[in-house]
Amino acid sequence: MFIPRSVVLTEDDKLIIIDQTLLPGKLEFTEIKDRPQMLEAIKKLQVRGAPAIGVFAAYCVYILALRYRDMLRVDMIPALRADIARLGAARPTAVNLVWALGRMEEALRMSAAAPTEEIIAALRKAAVAIDEQDQSICRAIGQAGAPLIKEGMGLLTHCNAGSLATSFLGTALAPMYVAAEEGRRFRVYCDETRPLLQGARLTAWELAQAGLEPTVICDNAAAWLMDQGKIDMVLVGADRIAANGDTANKIGTLAVAVLAKHFGIPFYVCAPGSTFDRNTPTGAEMIIEQRDAAEVSSLWYSRPMVPEEAQVLNPAFDITPAELITGYITNEGIKQKADIGDSIFYY
Amino acid sequence: MFIPRSVVLTEDDKLIIIDQTLLPGKLEFTEIKDRPQMLEAIKKLQVRGAPAIGVFAAYCVYILALRYRDMLRVDMIPALRADIARLGAARPTAVNLVWALGRMEEALRMSAAAPTEEIIAALRKAAVAIDEQDQSICRAIGQAGAPLIKEGMGLLTHCNAGSLATSFLGTALAPMYVAAEEGRRFRVYCDETRPLLQGARLTAWELAQAGLEPTVICDNAAAWLMDQGKIDMVLVGADRIAANGDTANKIGTLAVAVLAKHFGIPFYVCAPGSTFDRNTPTGAEMIIEQRDAAEVSSLWYSRPMVPEEAQVLNPAFDITPAELITGYITNEGIKQKADIGDSIFYY
Repeated sequence: MFIPRSVVLTEDDKLIIIDQTLLPGKLEFTEIKDRPQMLEAIKKLQVRGAPAIGVFAAYCVYILALRYRDMLRVDMIPALRADIARLGAARPTAVNLVWALGRMEEALRMSAAAPTEEIIAALRKAAVAIDEQDQSICRAIGQAGAPLIKEGMGLLTHCNAGSLATSFLGTALAPMYVAAEEGRRFRVYCDETRPLLQGARLTAWELAQAGLEPTVICDNAAAWLMDQGKIDMVLVGADRIAANGDTANKIGTLAVAVLAKHFGIPFYVCAPGSTFDRNTPTGAEMIIEQRDAAEVSSLWYSRPMVPEEAQVLNPAFDITPAELITGYITNEGIKQKADIGDSIFYY
Repeated sequence: MFIPRSVVLTEDDKLIIIDQTLLPGKLEFTEIKDRPQMLEAIKKLQVRGAPAIGVFAAYCVYILALRYRDMLRVDMIPALRADIARLGAARPTAVNLVWALGRMEEALRMSAAAPTEEIIAALRKAAVAIDEQDQSICRAIGQAGAPLIKEGMGLLTHCNAGSLATSFLGTALAPMYVAAEEGRRFRVYCDETRPLLQGARLTAWELAQAGLEPTVICDNAAAWLMDQGKIDMVLVGADRIAANGDTANKIGTLAVAVLAKHFGIPFYVCAPGSTFDRNTPTGAEMIIEQRDAAEVSSLWYSRPMVPEEAQVLNPAFDITPAELITGYITNEGIKQKADIGDSIFYY
């Protein structure tokens, strides 16, 4: 089973990404060598998914340090600090980006008195640790969720909470990959996930690469599939989970959760502990980002598909209330709403 | 208020259509003169919406009769019968097409012994009657539904059940036009309606033309809008209504109905009496048309958006069970499920 990795540091220190903007038409491995390329990769969503961005940014700091190898230490350290600041500003709302760069900053600070080569080695070690930690978290989510997936089931997922969005395996897709590794067969349906089509373009692509034979539907066909009895369980990711269990995730998640409840289908949110936010009491306190109308009206299309005179509303996320969520599949096992208060943990 | 008409016969006998495949980017009035153009207009969905296709086909028969004016009557009648058969086969599942052509055939049969000019006059009269009957049915639906629309409400509709789909005013949009004519202001949200985007391309366009300032959302954002308290009522059209009230309509209608129920929002189906089908006991007997995967994966797009290895399911319709439907807004008033048994009528 081939599960794609979106960000890789090779043994000979090449930073390679899959350019996700070209999927599914073209699989292009791009080497990222300099800062303009790094910033562009984050801004243009060539790398996307909060955990994947964090890992990528950490490796970027290391690659830049390698380029500064011949600098004096007194020049190198401020140059790297400036790079960290610029990388951190590339997508201001991505929590993992700030978190990962914070760890790189810490590694830089701790090694600042050492010779240049030791600073570089410390940065490599920190970046690899971030990558490996994310991989083990995803693996743990997969192992926690896989027992729920029985032979012959039909599963529905929304957006891309897969290997492409993380270091490896993903969150919502991790239980599927582990169940497939264990030899069970099942059918995965992917909501195409308008307007950015992450389900059709990315989830279906990575599941197909892994041999899981995905089926793509328009978002509005999920109710029909459920009514036909084709869906036994829904697995989605999460962007943020409030202290009461309310969950922010890609626009459309709330609709899927309401439908799942109506049709009596279990609905699971898959996320690392770091997604649980004890500082946000409920979903009502979360602010929904409104994105550019052009994503709906003209992006991807060969011509505009909404009349100029019409308004467009393009919310990026919605909030699924905890009462619609059967459970949370985390790297510390499956949690129910009743557990949430005690299960807040960070990495 | 300007409400577009999709099919018009001018006083000097020109048959003009709005080419709906070019909307919303381009408003093109096309004169339809010969049979190849007529068949293409139906097949390529330049004219779409069951009532509009029926009216269009009736006028086509009249326009062809005009072209045959100098023929001998014994040549003209079989030529028109052959035309009727070809037009009827252009979209075999469109009930209104068969019905309207049946009426034209009847007019031809009744006038077959008369001079050529009288046959032509009889065909014009029959086609205009079909057009006017559809207009009065739409107006009656509008008048029945308009009192439900109060000042300041937020309304949601799905697909296009508007003036473009009928002779004038539409079905689901008719109550909105009548309420606007009566001076009430309200906000209409249009689901974009993947994959063919009838909501974004057509409904938003005709509402904007009429000055109703529509707002377009992706289908998967309807739950978010409802959760925000923005939607007070849902109005949709129908393709077929079973004897028990189960309703076939554009894919995604079932999801909207489930969401409306969850959020406590009234959900109305707007349709002429002819849509009620007493020969189909329940929705379970209706067959769902599966359409080409390319509509999801590549139509409209500048490149394929689904990986080649993935399957695509593209159901054209879904079935909304009667228990999710608050009422049926018809040309004979608003019916509840309890009335359905007695309210089956045809035109």
